Amino acid sequence: MVQKIGYSYENMSEVDVQILQNEIKAMGDEIRSLKAEKADAALIKEKIAAMLEKKKLLGDGQLDQGKHILKTAKGTRDYGPKSMAVRESVLKIVTDAFKRHGAETIDTPVFELREVLMGKYGEEGGKLVYDLQDQGGELLSLRYDLTVPFARYLAMNKITNIKRYHIAKVYRRDQPVMTRGRYREFYQCDFDIAGQYDLMIPEAECLRIVDEVLSKLEIGEFIIKLNHRFVLEGMFAACGAGADQFKTVCSSVDKLDKLPWVEVEEELIKEKGLTKDNTEKLGQFVRLREFNPTMGNMELLDKFMEFEELAKNARFKKGVEELKVLVNYCSLFGVSTVRFDPSLARGLDYYTGAIYEAVVPKALEGVSLEANGEEQKGLPVGVGSVAAGGRYDELVGNFMAPSGTKGKEKRQDVPCVGVSFGIERLFAIMEAKMQIEQLQVRTTETEIYIASAQKNLLQERMKLCKTLWDEGFKVELAYKANPKLLTQLQYCEDRLIPLVLIVGERELQDGVVKLRNVKTRVEQDVPINELVPTLRSTLSSLK
Amino acid sequence: MVQKIGYSYENMSEVDVQILQNEIKAMGDEIRSLKAEKADAALIKEKIAAMLEKKKLLGDGQLDQGKHILKTAKGTRDYGPKSMAVRESVLKIVTDAFKRHGAETIDTPVFELREVLMGKYGEEGGKLVYDLQDQGGELLSLRYDLTVPFARYLAMNKITNIKRYHIAKVYRRDQPVMTRGRYREFYQCDFDIAGQYDLMIPEAECLRIVDEVLSKLEIGEFIIKLNHRFVLEGMFAACGAGADQFKTVCSSVDKLDKLPWVEVEEELIKEKGLTKDNTEKLGQFVRLREFNPTMGNMELLDKFMEFEELAKNARFKKGVEELKVLVNYCSLFGVSTVRFDPSLARGLDYYTGAIYEAVVPKALEGVSLEANGEEQKGLPVGVGSVAAGGRYDELVGNFMAPSGTKGKEKRQDVPCVGVSFGIERLFAIMEAKMQIEQLQVRTTETEIYIASAQKNLLQERMKLCKTLWDEGFKVELAYKANPKLLTQLQYCEDRLIPLVLIVGERELQDGVVKLRNVKTRVEQDVPINELVPTLRSTLSSLK
Repeated sequence: MVQKIGYSYENMSEVDVQILQNEIKAMGDEIRSLKAEKADAALIKEKIAAMLEKKKLLGDGQLDQGKHILKTAKGTRDYGPKSMAVRESVLKIVTDAFKRHGAETIDTPVFELREVLMGKYGEEGGKLVYDLQDQGGELLSLRYDLTVPFARYLAMNKITNIKRYHIAKVYRRDQPVMTRGRYREFYQCDFDIAGQYDLMIPEAECLRIVDEVLSKLEIGEFIIKLNHRFVLEGMFAACGAGADQFKTVCSSVDKLDKLPWVEVEEELIKEKGLTKDNTEKLGQFVRLREFNPTMGNMELLDKFMEFEELAKNARFKKGVEELKVLVNYCSLFGVSTVRFDPSLARGLDYYTGAIYEAVVPKALEGVSLEANGEEQKGLPVGVGSVAAGGRYDELVGNFMAPSGTKGKEKRQDVPCVGVSFGIERLFAIMEAKMQIEQLQVRTTETEIYIASAQKNLLQERMKLCKTLWDEGFKVELAYKANPKLLTQLQYCEDRLIPLVLIVGERELQDGVVKLRNVKTRVEQDVPINELVPTLRSTLSSLK
Repeated sequence: MVQKIGYSYENMSEVDVQILQNEIKAMGDEIRSLKAEKADAALIKEKIAAMLEKKKLLGDGQLDQGKHILKTAKGTRDYGPKSMAVRESVLKIVTDAFKRHGAETIDTPVFELREVLMGKYGEEGGKLVYDLQDQGGELLSLRYDLTVPFARYLAMNKITNIKRYHIAKVYRRDQPVMTRGRYREFYQCDFDIAGQYDLMIPEAECLRIVDEVLSKLEIGEFIIKLNHRFVLEGMFAACGAGADQFKTVCSSVDKLDKLPWVEVEEELIKEKGLTKDNTEKLGQFVRLREFNPTMGNMELLDKFMEFEELAKNARFKKGVEELKVLVNYCSLFGVSTVRFDPSLARGLDYYTGAIYEAVVPKALEGVSLEANGEEQKGLPVGVGSVAAGGRYDELVGNFMAPSGTKGKEKRQDVPCVGVSFGIERLFAIMEAKMQIEQLQVRTTETEIYIASAQKNLLQERMKLCKTLWDEGFKVELAYKANPKLLTQLQYCEDRLIPLVLIVGERELQDGVVKLRNVKTRVEQDVPINELVPTLRSTLSSLK
């Protein structure tokens, strides 16, 4: 894949250049590992000098070989036909669910005024925003998620209720881990309900959608963890961590799905300043689900209220009561996968009520895929969040009437609740699943291929194509005047095209066309005037 | 829509700020028209000073009031639910056609390495590329079209044949003319066939696709103009314009669909250096279709060969012969809308063979739309290209082995032919058409609304929803515990939801639900156990 764009490597062939670049890359790797091992400085210096000598052989572009490689930008990838076919099948299941629940869709520009994004993603997130170059005019940045553009859209258009979904790419200058499916350009897939509604009804519909989508995708057992900001606040407060520590304690507790409690506890004591007494108490609370793995949600919520120091906290109590309402609505909606779990502590600061996260604990566990379809890539297995969301009642209001505002203006809040599917992870799971089950991916929808058995039949093939296209069939023909029959049949087998019509001189004289079933290889003569109904019935019998 | 983000306008209310900004805008308009009328310079200066005084009242942000408005980036827009619904319906027709012809789809990143785009769009185009800020790492730019990324994709993956479509947004820092539908972020919709195939067969399929799509969209009569690079070259050469003048003469001739010949002729003489003799000869050639408006394509091509000075040019002759093949294939494919027109001179330098452009001469002629659905915007009417393309055999090869290459490497060309739909223009025509025909746009697909007639029936509504969602129906309910019946029915009428199920105490006791047809307002009681089949048959009868 080494390519040169506008540079001359003098008398080297492309292969020579490749070999040389590989050598340089290997030397670079060696240098990096020497540095990592803190090897002798003189040795490293020597290795670097040798590498620079090699680089000189490459000529002009010696200092940045990456520049000469025909490639996509770091952390991004092309989606070839196979990946796109898998994506389309996953997205169809998701959008069908959104539409089944009456959602509209919107789209916003890929970039926003920089000011719109500024200060919305914390210090860390802010660093990862892609800025456009100042080419005169406004300062712009690529969108980092779909939530802030949604809030901007609502505020700008003074929309106070909408049920919408938005599927689009977002951009983060993160360190890409392509083997684990983490890219700098990736899809997000958001569903949100904005509006002043009664308690927990929209939440229940969001959870029903998560349940429907994950069931239909058939990616294995899943659970939807459920918690509430007030429950988290109540627990933390009872353990000496006040509102100012909410975020930082959340971020530790959030690690409980990956780390054992002792490590989380150590972090809370050493880095967050909690006492051992406090963490012991906190452990009792956040591990309540862990200690009672099979207990029903209502029962567990009741059990929680038995802790006197929590029960006396009005906010905590409200959180528990709201969750009870939600749990009840979920069972009315037939969602049996929700599981109240006090250790769920999603980091995002803007949540104001219920929060939830769907995980597939055993998705394709233990499966390792080196090359997956057309792209080489690994796979996120095991525990992994595949959908997450919650209630955020204040984000839109912050746009409509920013904190700096004073005077007569009245702040208008637009309460929102939503869910975002980890669609890239779902794509990867789906691609792997198809490979495991040895399912072939069709990248086209062609139903019928028009072939010819002899030479000089192009015009006949074209006329037949026209007839069938006019009837709405999905039809292809070879772009050759005199293609070989074998080549044509091979194409159909490779592409999983179910039917072939073979035009031949003998058949034309008899007023028939030969219809071949590609899979069974059975052939039959069909009279031209019966062709269309025969094809329709044959195709519908194949479905 | 005036909003303040993090700025303080001191003691002004939002309304005050709006009034002030409107005043400033009016003053600006006045200044611009004074300038246009070449009014007295002193007067203009005075007006500007007055405007700047007003601006000062706005405080900090005086010099760029646009900054303080909650808005999308210049030249971009949000797509609300109505626009999206229209877009989806247009895109469905287009993608269905692509799939009917066996195309796969791919996607590429929104940005490319800057080098990949550099030098591909001429001097003018290059200035319009959006660059990303150098934040360390690679230099990136937003894609300007889908053709160069496609060529990069083929070259990088060494793909030598594919039939693919790609629908995605592209970016140009052009002067936006939003009232005419020209944006800085807009969709492109490309279909291309790459591969070494026999003469004109892929071209004929491209034209068949254009014909199918435009017919199905029902946007009025259209024609597909047809020409060939060799025909253009031959005509120009016979008129004293050599290969080095090809591009510049093309750009003049291309204006013939908007300007009268005398003006084009004047430009050719004054700016391009042609003699009067030459332009008179050229006029005879390029206006051949104009002089013979009803002549058949074959006849017109034959007539062209009667010009001795053209017929003796081997390249010109080849172009004419190729077009004859294409015209014949088009009629075999049932494409009756093609029209050979020697004045078609698409400017793009990379075309190497047949070129074509579909125009809708009378699309919604004379219709002027001020406000169009949710966005205020004008409409491109009358002559307008809605699809265009041609053969480009060298673009991919230029990527695979750039001109600087020498030695053992063999240049591999990947011949390509394609068509790009002017999808934004088609969207606009479609939106206007729907408005003219007073068609209401549905932005959701909800089939059934679950309403209640009395209080305290939320749980019953939720259970009914569950049952119907389980059966795959598209169902909504109000997110209120005790919604008013009138509000619920009104929602259905506004949203064009066809059916309502009304849950009531009396009905529950009788084991029935009331089914209401929203349009006819006819109601009937349906026994619960017959509900699902009744709904299915009612819905299918409504289609």
